Amino acid sequence: MRPSQRQSDELRPLSLTRGYTAHAEGSVLIQIGQTRVLCTASVETSVPPFLRGKDQGWVTAEYGMLPRATHTRSAREAAKGKQTGRTQEIQRLIGRSLRAVTDLAALGERQITLDCDVLQADGGTRCAAITGAWVALHDACAKLVAEGVLPSNPVREHVAAISVGIVDGKPVLDLDYAEDSNCDTDMNVIMTGSGGIVEIQGTAEGTPFSRAELTALVDLADTGIRQLVAAQTQAIKG
Amino acid sequence: MRPSQRQSDELRPLSLTRGYTAHAEGSVLIQIGQTRVLCTASVETSVPPFLRGKDQGWVTAEYGMLPRATHTRSAREAAKGKQTGRTQEIQRLIGRSLRAVTDLAALGERQITLDCDVLQADGGTRCAAITGAWVALHDACAKLVAEGVLPSNPVREHVAAISVGIVDGKPVLDLDYAEDSNCDTDMNVIMTGSGGIVEIQGTAEGTPFSRAELTALVDLADTGIRQLVAAQTQAIKG
Amino acid sequence: MRPSQRQSDELRPLSLTRGYTAHAEGSVLIQIGQTRVLCTASVETSVPPFLRGKDQGWVTAEYGMLPRATHTRSAREAAKGKQTGRTQEIQRLIGRSLRAVTDLAALGERQITLDCDVLQADGGTRCAAITGAWVALHDACAKLVAEGVLPSNPVREHVAAISVGIVDGKPVLDLDYAEDSNCDTDMNVIMTGSGGIVEIQGTAEGTPFSRAELTALVDLADTGIRQLVAAQTQAIKG
Amino acid sequence: MRPSQRQSDELRPLSLTRGYTAHAEGSVLIQIGQTRVLCTASVETSVPPFLRGKDQGWVTAEYGMLPRATHTRSAREAAKGKQTGRTQEIQRLIGRSLRAVTDLAALGERQITLDCDVLQADGGTRCAAITGAWVALHDACAKLVAEGVLPSNPVREHVAAISVGIVDGKPVLDLDYAEDSNCDTDMNVIMTGSGGIVEIQGTAEGTPFSRAELTALVDLADTGIRQLVAAQTQAIKG
Amino acid sequence: MRPSQRQSDELRPLSLTRGYTAHAEGSVLIQIGQTRVLCTASVETSVPPFLRGKDQGWVTAEYGMLPRATHTRSAREAAKGKQTGRTQEIQRLIGRSLRAVTDLAALGERQITLDCDVLQADGGTRCAAITGAWVALHDACAKLVAEGVLPSNPVREHVAAISVGIVDGKPVLDLDYAEDSNCDTDMNVIMTGSGGIVEIQGTAEGTPFSRAELTALVDLADTGIRQLVAAQTQAIKG
Amino acid sequence: MRPSQRQSDELRPLSLTRGYTAHAEGSVLIQIGQTRVLCTASVETSVPPFLRGKDQGWVTAEYGMLPRATHTRSAREAAKGKQTGRTQEIQRLIGRSLRAVTDLAALGERQITLDCDVLQADGGTRCAAITGAWVALHDACAKLVAEGVLPSNPVREHVAAISVGIVDGKPVLDLDYAEDSNCDTDMNVIMTGSGGIVEIQGTAEGTPFSRAELTALVDLADTGIRQLVAAQTQAIKG
Repeated sequence: MRPSQRQSDELRPLSLTRGYTAHAEGSVLIQIGQTRVLCTASVETSVPPFLRGKDQGWVTAEYGMLPRATHTRSAREAAKGKQTGRTQEIQRLIGRSLRAVTDLAALGERQITLDCDVLQADGGTRCAAITGAWVALHDACAKLVAEGVLPSNPVREHVAAISVGIVDGKPVLDLDYAEDSNCDTDMNVIMTGSGGIVEIQGTAEGTPFSRAELTALVDLADTGIRQLVAAQTQAIKG
Repeated sequence: MRPSQRQSDELRPLSLTRGYTAHAEGSVLIQIGQTRVLCTASVETSVPPFLRGKDQGWVTAEYGMLPRATHTRSAREAAKGKQTGRTQEIQRLIGRSLRAVTDLAALGERQITLDCDVLQADGGTRCAAITGAWVALHDACAKLVAEGVLPSNPVREHVAAISVGIVDGKPVLDLDYAEDSNCDTDMNVIMTGSGGIVEIQGTAEGTPFSRAELTALVDLADTGIRQLVAAQTQAIKG
Repeated sequence: MRPSQRQSDELRPLSLTRGYTAHAEGSVLIQIGQTRVLCTASVETSVPPFLRGKDQGWVTAEYGMLPRATHTRSAREAAKGKQTGRTQEIQRLIGRSLRAVTDLAALGERQITLDCDVLQADGGTRCAAITGAWVALHDACAKLVAEGVLPSNPVREHVAAISVGIVDGKPVLDLDYAEDSNCDTDMNVIMTGSGGIVEIQGTAEGTPFSRAELTALVDLADTGIRQLVAAQTQAIKG
Repeated sequence: MRPSQRQSDELRPLSLTRGYTAHAEGSVLIQIGQTRVLCTASVETSVPPFLRGKDQGWVTAEYGMLPRATHTRSAREAAKGKQTGRTQEIQRLIGRSLRAVTDLAALGERQITLDCDVLQADGGTRCAAITGAWVALHDACAKLVAEGVLPSNPVREHVAAISVGIVDGKPVLDLDYAEDSNCDTDMNVIMTGSGGIVEIQGTAEGTPFSRAELTALVDLADTGIRQLVAAQTQAIKG
Repeated sequence: MRPSQRQSDELRPLSLTRGYTAHAEGSVLIQIGQTRVLCTASVETSVPPFLRGKDQGWVTAEYGMLPRATHTRSAREAAKGKQTGRTQEIQRLIGRSLRAVTDLAALGERQITLDCDVLQADGGTRCAAITGAWVALHDACAKLVAEGVLPSNPVREHVAAISVGIVDGKPVLDLDYAEDSNCDTDMNVIMTGSGGIVEIQGTAEGTPFSRAELTALVDLADTGIRQLVAAQTQAIKG
Repeated sequence: MRPSQRQSDELRPLSLTRGYTAHAEGSVLIQIGQTRVLCTASVETSVPPFLRGKDQGWVTAEYGMLPRATHTRSAREAAKGKQTGRTQEIQRLIGRSLRAVTDLAALGERQITLDCDVLQADGGTRCAAITGAWVALHDACAKLVAEGVLPSNPVREHVAAISVGIVDGKPVLDLDYAEDSNCDTDMNVIMTGSGGIVEIQGTAEGTPFSRAELTALVDLADTGIRQLVAAQTQAIKG
């Protein structure tokens, strides 16, 4: 039995709260189990230097964790004066995932920045960030459409992310911190609403994993992603 | 009439939510009007180098603002690689205010760090941070007492903070962003539960202010602080 | 009796030496007791980005302390790679104070930077910096008038600063280091030549202070500021 | 046909030159096609703080690219004052991969740092770094055995890495720069000598990839890894 | 006898390998004894801000040392986040030396950056860098001539550098690490092909040196420089 | 004729003011022409890590220039967050020069830091810093002797520095800014009281210099150094 009493293919309870803060063009609190991430989308009418004059937009992300989002306090990155390698890896991943489903040309010369700040961490924060940020991005683009700035929403399809892993020799879906810190293999899978794989990152923390285990893990992830996409669909209707 | 339709001596609606996040020894969300600050207290069993072996503790604070807590996105300090002068001023102020009411010797060789992170900003974030952080600090110390680590709570009395200012020639209490960005004088007053002044910082943004105006502003602040202290008292009972 | 044998309302001996260095448009050494601060004003024909094209000028300040200005050597900020929070607080304060008495529109698209470098510290360095920097600023503007660049001096009135505090339960004026490191309350008051308050910053280092003490401290400061303004008046005539 | 005239499952010419520089305990130049990476292993008798007194060692990696290893000069990270997110991602990956096949307890309280510096880049630098660093690590450990410091080599088995990707709709092995900058999917696979997967990182740069494509890519990688492992085996015999 | 069995006026074996890497406009590996430095020249069509619109070019240099180029590993500057004073001194020296023999006006609005990266260090790395970088610079300029971009090579004459020193009381040429770390005086002399001195830097590590010793050292350097210039001449013909 | 109407071998007027500031163990203002440098010596009872337990002391230096010491304001290094290469070169040079005449073993486990801050610059600041710092160092050591901490002064002999150069084809002594910014060759020579050369650094800014010119320049420097040493001798008697 898993520490959380869940089935091996069972997601933690999930909620997506839109309009969590007032100023951002999109603002979503995603809560999955005890993990809570605030995702805001900010629209700016300028693009990074390498895109200037190219008649297309950009979607990027920044990730942060409040110092006491975790069991023990970790140093504030702003105070240390630099972001860790982990933070940079995660924010690059979020940005890539969202760009994969956005029509950047249709966005025009605009940049949308997704700030994903972890208020409370219990495993799976990068996956929650991607899943929540998609809703914030969609909301921000919908606002541009509602304001007549864009003719249609440049977000082409859903994207969501989930972790899977091998814990005590068994593939499980959506690891919490207790499982994550104790697993043999940890994998993050990012898929579109139509089932295409956007990114897969699997790491053997202990024993290397086999081709068969890889297949089993991607199967599990696929199950989870479908539920996340359904929740996103529900949320943007709400 | 004030933009928010409040009387000149009227606070915005206030709430203090304890246990807002799970891991910290104290965790309080303070909301005053549209300003929301998450204050967590983290207890560590080590002290800064200058206090080692001196048989006393330390209380310190860090302050941050999520990039899109504000009307337009501001750059993430962790990404820029340094904290602004404003951030440093504020976190030094929070730390000083809380130390003023804490018996550091009674705390023993422990450090309590108050992380005050602004989720949404609408004026008065530093004052909200102090008022909320006091509750988080008190909770963290109460936990040490409950665990038998300390014989009694080293927080000697309340401390709370409020902004006052002169807007359109008239002294007002608890400025929101619309007033703050348009005032002649902006003042933050920090007082204890028994009415002692811990810190006063007043700045003429436009016309200098007179001795009479100083008196009127401190009177207003005194009124506000009493209400904040009452709310703190209520909160720690809850 | 005070360590320096002064009366409670007595300033330390003060001198303002203009033209202390040769290159700056204004260059003043202020000495008050053992505290010595070199204040230079540099005129540049560009303004910060946020003011470009707005047809107004800017006055800003930087503050530094030579490593051995103090009793024990403190690390050089340039070597550490960052300015402390204290340094940033002080230079922001100096800049605000001088802007409060300068007609920025009349200055035109120019920036004047006041560099305040402490050669020797014995308490009250930030107040000395403001009082001395006003003379340097006035001199630099007078030079622009003399050169026919400006029709009249955009410095509208005097501004000066002094510390007051409660030492051994008694309000005193112009604390030196011995008093400053041993006081209950430390307050900096910045006033214009016509007696308006530009900034007040009071901190209870030990026991909080009362409303009556606040009044007494501001009275004392008022007395001191008048003498500083008289000295400035004398200096710019010289 | 591929730009390099290779078959879809054909590696570029590979060489592993041991003892490329004189001082390091292990020093290997790996050349695969036009990509050249110098990998050195340095043994130090101290471990990172989090491992002190835990009676085990550590293997870590740093990655760098000479400014003109690439078609156009890129800024020197030492001059910019920070490592890019890409650099940090890569060096974390190299370290994890090598630790996966090293018996850290058997290494004792020692740290081995693998410096992987790219002298010339033509795609696949991170994979080349892992494959070459393994040989340098093995050499450094063999030296410790030869010197009687360790009873046996703590490197338990081979680890090697290769890139695969989908170019013009077709899965190919070992992408060079021309293919890498033009592919739909880019994947790095890291496997042990016995065929276990240590890490898999796949990214859809354009169209998302399917489950079937994932399988095809891992098949290709498996083929390549076997050849790399054979070359490593040959090299350490030489 | 010297540790390397050389005569006091004998250079170490020298080789200059052009085209060592493929992408740079000039790329030279210089090897002198066990010291190996890779020098690449990169041509960019922009100049530093202070030269914009002045119708002339610029030649600059950056210097780095791979962490394990030395007997014991030194920290990677990119990881530490700053270049040491030594690194900055050396790269400024290389840039000055090359500019001394380049007609910057004839170069046009172009910047050539010489990256000098030490792959293996055994004393004399800065001198090797200058001598090798000259060849890379010459090659890059020759390429601009060959492409019809420039009418003639703006490199006016040779420049080369050599170390001399007093070891065990005796002047010697071209110190290796064993001598360098054990000498009384260490001097680097940089001369043009026609025998003019471009730079001389001599430091007494132990006993100060006399005027006579200065003369003897410069005599030795002159001998060495002639051989280096001959080798450069040979290399660019090759 | 020189811009300053001096003979080619004539120093600018020189003064050495001891006890310029109150706190440092040695504090000297050196003024040579319009160049003014404040040199303080601070004694600390700890040594850098690489000397711990080695039963010897260390002498080191830091150099800074006030932002408006120069004709146009230069950016404050503390605000930029790093010291320039020029600053680092100079402070390393000052430290080396003073260590060359100090018996570090006799100093015991102490570090003396010489802070050399340029209040006003008119050429030759690094040479003035060395010459002035020697007096501050000597004073600080004399104080240790006077206090009975050391049996005798560990400063073995004088060291002083002067610039020489070739201006308009003619060798001159002690260049001021007007000459320095317009010379063909600029050379700093550092010699001991007994005439040994501690450091020589000569750079051809324009035309390379000949062996004969080198000799002429060192002759001139020798003349200047004798006068500086006489002034130091006079000063420490005073």
